[in-house]
Amino acid sequence: MRIGELSRRSGVSVPTIKYYLREKMLPEGERIAANQVRYSEEHLRRLRLIRSLIDVGGLPVPTVREVLAEIDASQPSVHHAVALAHRGLPVLTGERSDEPREEARRYVESVFAARGWTVPEDHPGFTALVEALARMSLLNQRGFFECVGRYAELAEAIAEVDIDLISGHTDVADVVEKAVLGTVLGDVVITALRRIAQEQVFNRRMAQGG
Amino acid sequence: MRIGELSRRSGVSVPTIKYYLREKMLPEGERIAANQVRYSEEHLRRLRLIRSLIDVGGLPVPTVREVLAEIDASQPSVHHAVALAHRGLPVLTGERSDEPREEARRYVESVFAARGWTVPEDHPGFTALVEALARMSLLNQRGFFECVGRYAELAEAIAEVDIDLISGHTDVADVVEKAVLGTVLGDVVITALRRIAQEQVFNRRMAQGG
Repeated sequence: MRIGELSRRSGVSVPTIKYYLREKMLPEGERIAANQVRYSEEHLRRLRLIRSLIDVGGLPVPTVREVLAEIDASQPSVHHAVALAHRGLPVLTGERSDEPREEARRYVESVFAARGWTVPEDHPGFTALVEALARMSLLNQRGFFECVGRYAELAEAIAEVDIDLISGHTDVADVVEKAVLGTVLGDVVITALRRIAQEQVFNRRMAQGG
Repeated sequence: MRIGELSRRSGVSVPTIKYYLREKMLPEGERIAANQVRYSEEHLRRLRLIRSLIDVGGLPVPTVREVLAEIDASQPSVHHAVALAHRGLPVLTGERSDEPREEARRYVESVFAARGWTVPEDHPGFTALVEALARMSLLNQRGFFECVGRYAELAEAIAEVDIDLISGHTDVADVVEKAVLGTVLGDVVITALRRIAQEQVFNRRMAQGG
């Protein structure tokens, strides 16, 4: 198909497609005449992958570029691709109060130890967790701490589902893509389900008079 | 304390504090002389709440302003405040292909029906969920659909913990704040825990040779 049809079928504008081509996020099409280039279903699929990570997953374009480079690598690594996608986590800025962070860090470590998890201290998830708890502590909402153990237990049950999804597949590039999509779009799915479930539980308890 | 000390203790710059004052996100201090205003611990706490929602939760400033207005209302509503915070969900843009969206919508409805959930079709969580599944379908990753039922079950278990946290408190403004923080910072906590848990499960299975 020509670039116009690629644009129409993907819903991505021609200038944006040209930008992705320049940035090597989309492979070049096949030149079939001096001023005519043909694109395939593979180009359409790649555009859908790019737009899913950006539109639904909320990843910034530079992160998507790095994730795609990993998927295209001769020996792509699931671990590296997912680590790249993880950088889409909100960047933590602003106040760093040492005292509640130290308390939060110790609490998170005790939860992880109880579950037998080993996590390096510079893990971005560890940092995000400690910062969220430190903020709760600063806001006198320490009751939230007591939820973390149960959240960790349920997160592990979610992760079992996640890993089942990529297990048993042998095409490494496909596994990497599944892992990235499952993590990034999966976050959106779980966040949405949690919010819907909160309303269901809230309404059910209200109906039961409690 | 003066504005300089408020800035130092909160880690928020004086110009930013003045911006929050102009936007009525922070109540005015007490004027104790022609050119001297005094701020209290309550101002410090409010600044910490604002920065937690922005820095950790990733909410945009206009959303934070609306959430604070609800917390400050004479009869604040948990439901309304959380609905406002929910608008922080990634905005869905771009391609809208009707065919996979219809399939995704029916699938989500069947999962909800199986759990006895009633959700209006214009619920932002419902829309986000359908869009994420429609993208998976467009990318030939329909295997992901089969995870949604189990994710919903686990999301309900998470929501039970969430609602327990706010149950039994009678100060409505405090309940609203707990609900907003639990939802917004809770998303960060659960996202982080899921990513850490994925690595734990992945490594454990690799060690078991499968």
